[in-house]
Amino acid sequence: MKNNFIIKGDICYSKSQNELNTFEDKYLICKDGISMGVFDEIFAEYKDFEVLDYSNKIVVPGLIDLHVHAPQYTYRGLGMDLELLEWLNTYTFPEESKYQDLTYAKKSYEKFVNDLKFSSTTRASIFSTLHVDSTILLMDLLEESGMVTYVGKVNMDRNGIDTLQEKDAAESESETKRWLAEIKGRYKNTFPILTPRFTPSCTDDLMARLGEIEKEYKLPVQSHLSENQSEIAWVKKLSPKSTCYGDSYDRFHLFGDFSKTIMAHCVWSTEEEQKLLRERGVFIAHCPNSNLNLSSGIAPIRKYLEEGQNIGLGSDIAGGIHLSIFKQMSDAIQVSKMYWRLVDNDFLPLTIEEAFYLGTIGGGKFFGNVGSFDKDFEFDAVVIDDSDYRRDGLTLHQRLERTIYISDDRHVIHKFIQGSKIF
Amino acid sequence: MKNNFIIKGDICYSKSQNELNTFEDKYLICKDGISMGVFDEIFAEYKDFEVLDYSNKIVVPGLIDLHVHAPQYTYRGLGMDLELLEWLNTYTFPEESKYQDLTYAKKSYEKFVNDLKFSSTTRASIFSTLHVDSTILLMDLLEESGMVTYVGKVNMDRNGIDTLQEKDAAESESETKRWLAEIKGRYKNTFPILTPRFTPSCTDDLMARLGEIEKEYKLPVQSHLSENQSEIAWVKKLSPKSTCYGDSYDRFHLFGDFSKTIMAHCVWSTEEEQKLLRERGVFIAHCPNSNLNLSSGIAPIRKYLEEGQNIGLGSDIAGGIHLSIFKQMSDAIQVSKMYWRLVDNDFLPLTIEEAFYLGTIGGGKFFGNVGSFDKDFEFDAVVIDDSDYRRDGLTLHQRLERTIYISDDRHVIHKFIQGSKIF
Repeated sequence: MKNNFIIKGDICYSKSQNELNTFEDKYLICKDGISMGVFDEIFAEYKDFEVLDYSNKIVVPGLIDLHVHAPQYTYRGLGMDLELLEWLNTYTFPEESKYQDLTYAKKSYEKFVNDLKFSSTTRASIFSTLHVDSTILLMDLLEESGMVTYVGKVNMDRNGIDTLQEKDAAESESETKRWLAEIKGRYKNTFPILTPRFTPSCTDDLMARLGEIEKEYKLPVQSHLSENQSEIAWVKKLSPKSTCYGDSYDRFHLFGDFSKTIMAHCVWSTEEEQKLLRERGVFIAHCPNSNLNLSSGIAPIRKYLEEGQNIGLGSDIAGGIHLSIFKQMSDAIQVSKMYWRLVDNDFLPLTIEEAFYLGTIGGGKFFGNVGSFDKDFEFDAVVIDDSDYRRDGLTLHQRLERTIYISDDRHVIHKFIQGSKIF
Repeated sequence: MKNNFIIKGDICYSKSQNELNTFEDKYLICKDGISMGVFDEIFAEYKDFEVLDYSNKIVVPGLIDLHVHAPQYTYRGLGMDLELLEWLNTYTFPEESKYQDLTYAKKSYEKFVNDLKFSSTTRASIFSTLHVDSTILLMDLLEESGMVTYVGKVNMDRNGIDTLQEKDAAESESETKRWLAEIKGRYKNTFPILTPRFTPSCTDDLMARLGEIEKEYKLPVQSHLSENQSEIAWVKKLSPKSTCYGDSYDRFHLFGDFSKTIMAHCVWSTEEEQKLLRERGVFIAHCPNSNLNLSSGIAPIRKYLEEGQNIGLGSDIAGGIHLSIFKQMSDAIQVSKMYWRLVDNDFLPLTIEEAFYLGTIGGGKFFGNVGSFDKDFEFDAVVIDDSDYRRDGLTLHQRLERTIYISDDRHVIHKFIQGSKIF
């Protein structure tokens, strides 16, 4: 299919944080992979465009996953009785060390990429492991899938395990450069992102070298921030010069001052750290399911929204269980209710409008003009068949609410990215 | 199939609250619908029993749903921005009033019963509506499904809406008696349970009449208790003579002194109420997903377990979104982590063993010797095909953990109740 076409269906998209547009039985126009908006009828200039009739189906912008660990997909739902640091050592690091083996990596990454492809997610920012070759293998698979992704070879030169750690900062740097050299010019939709695992995994020496790479290559950055209280206490010890956890990245220009940055979690960010996040325009990847499973806590997302932070949602496989960003939307609402009820009743629960915004435009901004059907947005769309759980008399807004709460991969029947049909 | 057979497979069941038995590639024997236990080999006396080969499949006792509203199934995932009382008036009552119409009831209840049948649940305690005829229709469908259920025609003579309320206590009483007369002797596996909706819906006059019925018919009872703070404040006003919310039932012998009773939620039960629950042996139906969605709060389940309360799990459709009791197990663990992290760090999160116990024996006790494969338990079993998410090197315990977190109805491939194959 060409990138010029028209979708007829029941169309929903966020206009802003508090504004959800719903249009029943209307025309959504894609021209050269860009949305022209939603119309009541087909104007003369689009008369030649093919019309895809998805009447009675729900059409939403593709969902955005700002934080997911590809090598952890195959063991989601394991070890959920542990908190972060213990869980990393017991499950994550031993598992990730297997990605040294390309045969193992291929089998696992194929499953991950296939399931992501047939989910409602169209774009994602992904951690691989520290291994260059299997990272490239993952990037090849993602490119082939048609999704738009950032992928990070992980950097870690301390506090790993024997089988999962780079020898030193110099090796981590040279491996990163080898990776960047090997993928140069190789992809259209798959981009590298610098990925210091988190401060406990990276010496200051390594952080400084990554800061240099970042300056030279103008790469975006992703990492973890203020997820768990033991982790924060450890960072304080490891990085005594930093004024806050966020500063342990910022000191090395890895916190959004040269290019865009994603920090996952921010459950326990101090006021100072919140200010830094805001000033640098860092994207917070809110991962409510993971924060529940690893007993991390509940991020004050209402506060972040009110203060104008950049925020999107992350599945955080395998701290989180589910790839679905619809599920993260309902989880985000649920935990915000507990925050309001049990922590601070000044911060009202998130609404459907806000949760949907976070999972579309909120994360989409990281990718550019992405996450809406307003004019000039890149055309990513997902078609949902809700006939299985549809009932008479519901508004489209209500059908979307039910889709957020109860749909699964079976209900995702078509997907478009940048105007190309993925399935 | 006869009620004598042997299942070969990977068998898991609770022995006690903290003890999970896992047996790989063993034989589970059913004789006359009763479990004989799990064996390494087939002894002479069972040599003639058919062997059902479910090798590599996970076999668990049927799961128990202690609290579910059948008429709410078709609108789960709607109005989740409201708290309990507002949600009841806006969504629940108008919807339930439609069950006056038997055509509407049939269509909706068929969907509910079909989905429950193909879920991992084998037994449930169910609310219908106040309508006698559609309640009988629901009971007919459930009987036909092969599941074992308690079903309650709802009583409500105040604070309903025009289209959903009985005229007065006398009408509610006579309708209840008509219902009991009509179903007498009609079912093998479908039992009536007295169901005062909750104290705000029932005058003292009605409660007293139900207490008399309960005394005469020796029926079990189900209702709601201390779910939401506004509800509790309202009960205080409506029932000033009651020393606690639980006492508003207990005063009328509807709190377990004549027969077994289920009270859903108990999120905010006072020490006095907890004592009453314990003394009366009332079953607490813990409904974590619903308590999240309606912003009710988090029940202190660790405390209840330590103090020896009877507890099982409830889906509480449509306060809860999912029929699956596996999902309630993982939700119960997740909210217990937030309780520990944010409310009281003396009460440790629930373990997999405890959550699995709650969803099997915990609720099963309400039905008798149900919820385990120990010798002499009634033979309810569910066969799970985890090949979709199975990976090498996992213990059976770990496969069960992953099943609790990530399985859905697609993975439930066979079900047995009292030794009869349901599918």
